Amino acid sequence: MYYSKLFGKTSKTVSADEESVNAQFLIRGGFVSKQMAGVYNYLPLGLRVLTKIQNIVREEMTAIGGSEILMPSLTQEESYKTTGRDTMDVLFHTEGPGGAKYVLNPTHEEVVTPLVQKYTFSYQDLPLSVFQIQNKYRNEPRAKSGILRGREFNMKDLYSFHANEESLNEFYEVAKKAYHKVYTRLGLGDITVLTYASGGAFSRYSHEFQTLNEVGEDTVYFCEECRVGINKEIIADQNSCPECGNMDLVQKNGIEVGNIFKLGQKFSSAFGFKVLDAEGKELPVEMGCYGIGPSRVMGTLVEVFHDEKGIIWPEAVAPFKYHLLALGREDETFAEAEKIYKNLVASGAEVLFDDRRDVTAGVKFADADLIGLPVRLIVSKKTLDQQSVEMKKRNEAESKLVPIADLV
Amino acid sequence: MYYSKLFGKTSKTVSADEESVNAQFLIRGGFVSKQMAGVYNYLPLGLRVLTKIQNIVREEMTAIGGSEILMPSLTQEESYKTTGRDTMDVLFHTEGPGGAKYVLNPTHEEVVTPLVQKYTFSYQDLPLSVFQIQNKYRNEPRAKSGILRGREFNMKDLYSFHANEESLNEFYEVAKKAYHKVYTRLGLGDITVLTYASGGAFSRYSHEFQTLNEVGEDTVYFCEECRVGINKEIIADQNSCPECGNMDLVQKNGIEVGNIFKLGQKFSSAFGFKVLDAEGKELPVEMGCYGIGPSRVMGTLVEVFHDEKGIIWPEAVAPFKYHLLALGREDETFAEAEKIYKNLVASGAEVLFDDRRDVTAGVKFADADLIGLPVRLIVSKKTLDQQSVEMKKRNEAESKLVPIADLV
Repeated sequence: MYYSKLFGKTSKTVSADEESVNAQFLIRGGFVSKQMAGVYNYLPLGLRVLTKIQNIVREEMTAIGGSEILMPSLTQEESYKTTGRDTMDVLFHTEGPGGAKYVLNPTHEEVVTPLVQKYTFSYQDLPLSVFQIQNKYRNEPRAKSGILRGREFNMKDLYSFHANEESLNEFYEVAKKAYHKVYTRLGLGDITVLTYASGGAFSRYSHEFQTLNEVGEDTVYFCEECRVGINKEIIADQNSCPECGNMDLVQKNGIEVGNIFKLGQKFSSAFGFKVLDAEGKELPVEMGCYGIGPSRVMGTLVEVFHDEKGIIWPEAVAPFKYHLLALGREDETFAEAEKIYKNLVASGAEVLFDDRRDVTAGVKFADADLIGLPVRLIVSKKTLDQQSVEMKKRNEAESKLVPIADLV
Repeated sequence: MYYSKLFGKTSKTVSADEESVNAQFLIRGGFVSKQMAGVYNYLPLGLRVLTKIQNIVREEMTAIGGSEILMPSLTQEESYKTTGRDTMDVLFHTEGPGGAKYVLNPTHEEVVTPLVQKYTFSYQDLPLSVFQIQNKYRNEPRAKSGILRGREFNMKDLYSFHANEESLNEFYEVAKKAYHKVYTRLGLGDITVLTYASGGAFSRYSHEFQTLNEVGEDTVYFCEECRVGINKEIIADQNSCPECGNMDLVQKNGIEVGNIFKLGQKFSSAFGFKVLDAEGKELPVEMGCYGIGPSRVMGTLVEVFHDEKGIIWPEAVAPFKYHLLALGREDETFAEAEKIYKNLVASGAEVLFDDRRDVTAGVKFADADLIGLPVRLIVSKKTLDQQSVEMKKRNEAESKLVPIADLV
C-alpha cells in the first residue's frame, strides 16, 4: 500500500473529549474516526487490524467445532419479554411498520435459542455450537474508553447446546483452552488471566479473561501461584484462590477481554427448548455462552502495546508487517525504494510504503512510530550506497543495515 | 464439511407467509432462517454463499482503487437534518443516553461525507473512493420478497469524491465496467443490463443494473440492439434507447441488483465540503455513490438459477463445489467415501459430505438437488466395484462414472 494513496492520514491532535490512550493513538494514527461517543468509523488501517483479530478468533472457534452463522441486529421485543430481559437498561429500542416493537440485540441469546431449537430434536443432535462475528448495540450511559466500551461494537459470540450438564462442563473446558490460545496468538497470553466471576443462578462461577493493565476498569484479585484472578464482585464470598487456596492475593486492574458463562437452562426453559432422549423422554437443554469483542481486543492491544511515540502492534494483527520509508530528494532513491516495495509485495509481504516526497524524514519517522508497524525499513542515498536498507524493529532501539539482496 | 455436523438442516415445508421462490428454497435448503418479515438469520451454508458474493464485490471494488472502511449503523439524527433527509420514511429511529436521537443508517452519505471531508484538504487528495460491506436498515412497509428486499440487509456501498465533474464522469464509467465484471463473475452477466433511470437534480441519468427475470418488481424497457434498459420512471421522458435511438423497446421485469448515481454536490454542499485548488481557491466536491446488495444478489441468484427441485448455484458462489453422497448400508462404502472426502479436501476442494447412515438414497438425492451444489458425486457399492464414483452436474441430466484415481 502506498501511504500517499491510503485513506485516513495521521494527525497531531485529537479531540479533547478523548480521554483514553487507545482512542488517542488510534485516531491520531488514522485507524479509526469518532462518529459520536461510543461509535467509531474504521478506516483502512483500523479495519485491517480488526479483520486480523476476527480471523484469529474465527479460526480458534472453528477449531473447537463452532459453526459460523450470522444473526440479525433487529429483533422483536417480544423475544425479550419471553426471557424477561425486555427491561434491560442497555437495550436500544426502535419501531417497525405499524408500530411493531424491535430492539437492537446487545447479545443474542434471544435469537440463537429459538434458532437452534428449530433444527434440534434429539439428544443425538447435541452437543452443538454456533458462533457469529457481528455488531452489538448497548446503550451504555458512559462511553469514554475509546473502542474499549462502545455503544456499537464488534463481538464474537459463541453459544453451545448440550443434552446434559456433563457435556456442557466438558465443552466449557475446551472453550477455556481455545480462549487462552486466542490471547496467546494476539500477544496477550502472558498478561491475560482466567478470572473467577459470579456464576449467576445456574453455576458457582462464570469466568472472565482479564488483561492485567493499569487502565483496566475492573479490579482483579490475582493469585501469583496459579496465575488466575478473582473478580471484585465475588471477593467477599471467595477470598482465596479457588485453585490452590492461596489467600495472599494481589489487587490489580484488568480489562475484560472475554467472558464465558454457563447459562444452564435459563434461556432454553424460557423458550421451551427440550430434546428427546433415547427413550423418547424430554430432556431440558443446557447452554453456555462465550464472548470476545474484537474491537475491544483492538483497543486493549493499544493500551498494552504502546510507548510515548505511538502504537507497537504485535505482528499477528499489525495492518502491515513492514513500513518502508523512502528518504531524501533524489529520484533515484524513490525509484529504488519502489523496486524494493514491489519485490517485497511480490514475495507475499504486507508493506506500507511511505512514498511521500513533500514531507521531511522527521515527519516520516514520527508517523512510522505512531502507526507502529513491526518492522521499519529505510531507503536513502546513504543506505543505497551500501546496497542496503536500514531495518529497525518498532520494539527495539537498535537498527541494522540489511543488504537488499537478503530482504526478499 | 460433514452433513451430519452441519448446523441447519433441509426441511420439506416452509412457513405459509413466504411467497418468494428465493425464501422458499433458501429456508428449505437450510441457508437462511426467518427472524421476522425482512429480517433473516444466515446459517452456515447461507453465510458461505454471502461471503463469496461479498469477496467478489470486494475484489472488484479494490481493483478500481476503492479503499475498504467500515462505518457504523448508529448515527446522530442531526446529520440527517443537515441534509434534509431526516424525514425519510424508511429511517429507523432510536434514542441514546439522555434522549439523544439516533438513526440506523439506510445508506451512508451522511456519514461518509463528513468522514472523507476530515481527511481531504486539497484537490491533490482527489479523486478518492471508499467503500464498505455492511448492514443497512430500512423500515420498508412491505417486506415480502425474502432476502430480495429486507429491513436489515447486507450492502456494499462505494462513494467517490472528485475535484471536478470530468473526474466524476471518468470514474463513473470505470465503476460501470467494474459492475459488469461483478455480474459476469456471479454468472448473471448475460441477463443483467445497464438501465437508465432518473438522475435527480444533478445529472440527466442515474443507472441501475437490472437482472431480467419474471419475478422482478421493476419494469424495464429493453433495447435488444444495445442490451440496455430504460426504467419505467423515466420512460415517459425517454421513450427511445439513449444509446441508439431505437424506439422498439421490449417490456421486461427486472430485479435491481445494483445502482450507481452521480450525487453531484448535493451532500458535499450540505456539509460544506470543499477543497483548495492549486491557486488556493475553494472548489466544491463532486460525489458519486455505487451500491450492490450482496444479500439481494444472493436472492436473485436463487430466483434465476433453480428448477422445481431446488437451487442450481453458479460455481463462483456455491457454498461447496462437490456434494459427496455415500449410499447403501455397507461400512466399507462409508469408509471408502470418507477416504475420497479426505483426499478431495486435502487437494483444496470444497466438499459437503452426506455421511448420514439413517436416511434413504432418495432423501439424499432430494437434499442434493435442493441444496444445489454444482457437482454431485455418488459413492456406492456399485460404483466402488468399478473403482469409480458417479459424477453428475446439477445443471445437467446425464451422469458419468469417473475413476477414483482421476478425481483428485
